[in-house]
Amino acid sequence: MATLIAYEDASPSADAELLKKACHGWGTDEKAVISILGHRNATQRKLIRQAYQEIYQEDLVKRLEHELSGHLERAVYRWNLDPADRDAVLANVALRNENRDHKVIIELAFTLSPEELFAVKCAYQCRYKRSLEEDIASHTSSELRKLLVGLVSIHRYQGNEVNLKLANLESNILRSAIEEKAFNHEEILRIITTRSKPQLMATLNHYKDEHGCSITKHLKDDRADEYTETLRTTIRCMINPIKYFEKVIRNAIKKSGTNEDALTRVIVTRAEKDLKEIMEQYYKRNSVPLDQAVAKETSGDYKRFLLTLLGKED
Amino acid sequence: MATLIAYEDASPSADAELLKKACHGWGTDEKAVISILGHRNATQRKLIRQAYQEIYQEDLVKRLEHELSGHLERAVYRWNLDPADRDAVLANVALRNENRDHKVIIELAFTLSPEELFAVKCAYQCRYKRSLEEDIASHTSSELRKLLVGLVSIHRYQGNEVNLKLANLESNILRSAIEEKAFNHEEILRIITTRSKPQLMATLNHYKDEHGCSITKHLKDDRADEYTETLRTTIRCMINPIKYFEKVIRNAIKKSGTNEDALTRVIVTRAEKDLKEIMEQYYKRNSVPLDQAVAKETSGDYKRFLLTLLGKED
Repeated sequence: MATLIAYEDASPSADAELLKKACHGWGTDEKAVISILGHRNATQRKLIRQAYQEIYQEDLVKRLEHELSGHLERAVYRWNLDPADRDAVLANVALRNENRDHKVIIELAFTLSPEELFAVKCAYQCRYKRSLEEDIASHTSSELRKLLVGLVSIHRYQGNEVNLKLANLESNILRSAIEEKAFNHEEILRIITTRSKPQLMATLNHYKDEHGCSITKHLKDDRADEYTETLRTTIRCMINPIKYFEKVIRNAIKKSGTNEDALTRVIVTRAEKDLKEIMEQYYKRNSVPLDQAVAKETSGDYKRFLLTLLGKED
Repeated sequence: MATLIAYEDASPSADAELLKKACHGWGTDEKAVISILGHRNATQRKLIRQAYQEIYQEDLVKRLEHELSGHLERAVYRWNLDPADRDAVLANVALRNENRDHKVIIELAFTLSPEELFAVKCAYQCRYKRSLEEDIASHTSSELRKLLVGLVSIHRYQGNEVNLKLANLESNILRSAIEEKAFNHEEILRIITTRSKPQLMATLNHYKDEHGCSITKHLKDDRADEYTETLRTTIRCMINPIKYFEKVIRNAIKKSGTNEDALTRVIVTRAEKDLKEIMEQYYKRNSVPLDQAVAKETSGDYKRFLLTLLGKED
């Protein structure tokens, strides 16, 4: 469930006028911007952007980019884009980032429908004049390339049917590869990137039943490289996206120096979907409400904006 | 351009009635079936199928499957399906065929738009309860798997922009791999499966200019395996689909024992698209009109149907 509290009877043109006023003259009224956009859903934000363009012949997203700064600017920018376009931006930023973090790519693969993922790829091409896949392939190599390109390109079966015999067979294939410490075995890559989610769940459950331990534990290795880490993250995100996102937020907050990019990403992309469940999971895991943790680690208007999206006004 | 001569003012319900009559009683009036369906485009055929279902509570495609037999049955069956569904069937048949022929997979990658390919994948899942990609991956291994899965899964950039510096660079990467006879080099696979068609064309043109020989010639090898052959076919289909299809037809006719499956596939899938250009290319290459060659190698109602789709009535 969503945490966003959207005001249903808002008028796009009235909102556009209020936003124009908030941007007028020296200094920006950040509180007004947050109180409007932090209470509008994706469709409403799109209509506001259209109304703003019509009335003022100006792109609201660009205008706010100029008016705001720092973490707030980046958060509001991501929030204002169409979801497919936002995902394209997030993927591109992640690929260009030196601290290579492939979580965004994994999230695209496991939190979007095939139709949504297709829309992200079209948005990516429209923005960057290249395909998402070719950029992933150019930025990576060997197994990591195969894994990540496979994840975003392969159109998994969407049905719920499960073939238990196949799950049994493929659980054994995974086991053999892991026993040989061949984490990059092409059969592991084939199974993880091509099978449907329910089929893969059955395979991994069978693995756990048979060997008394989850595959992600068996994939832990002292010599863990980027590929193996990414493979483990992939499996965790597939098995339980809520737990996965809780961990992304936990690491973003707990590590010395908050990772605002990751924090913003999860809150902005999940606020209209399942952020409530992620908050519950966070409380279960950390015994502190997420909004309190966020309030402690952030400040100013950025904090105000995140708390608004979390459904917790100051 | 199309070779199909479709009668524009045909009525779907009148056609459905005529087809019902052609199927009535002992024996089927194949000539009537061919003279109707051989002159209707994809939209018209869809409407006829709907009208037939409404009037007679029966699926026309299944009915004709029972009424007809042999090569004619298979050709009419493929002709009657929606294009995306037909491509799904063709891909599945090719994957299950023991004489493994990956041309169908390559054709999907280079003759469809991303939207059409997406529709084929949905149709495949609907029909077979598995994804196209997982079936390709299960039927192949190592480099061949990477090539074929990459071809159908990766959403190539659709724009026309070409980066000549990149083409130069990647042409050299290809050359180094080929000089080492490393035809399965992961960089060859990356370039061929991820780059946009115009970009790939620029790279291959640069290769030819620089080395005085096309890459497909350099990929020829006495020890040619299935993967290398498929890679060459892939490049030929990408560079010039018309020449590629001409060769498919030429081989289907010329080899001892006509390959009706391949012949039917090209005629049925291209009759509404570019079969006219393929016919011209065939004449240029073989100095015999394609319809004469087809008439010589086929017989009966199957021949009549193919010639009708070629726009050449008996």
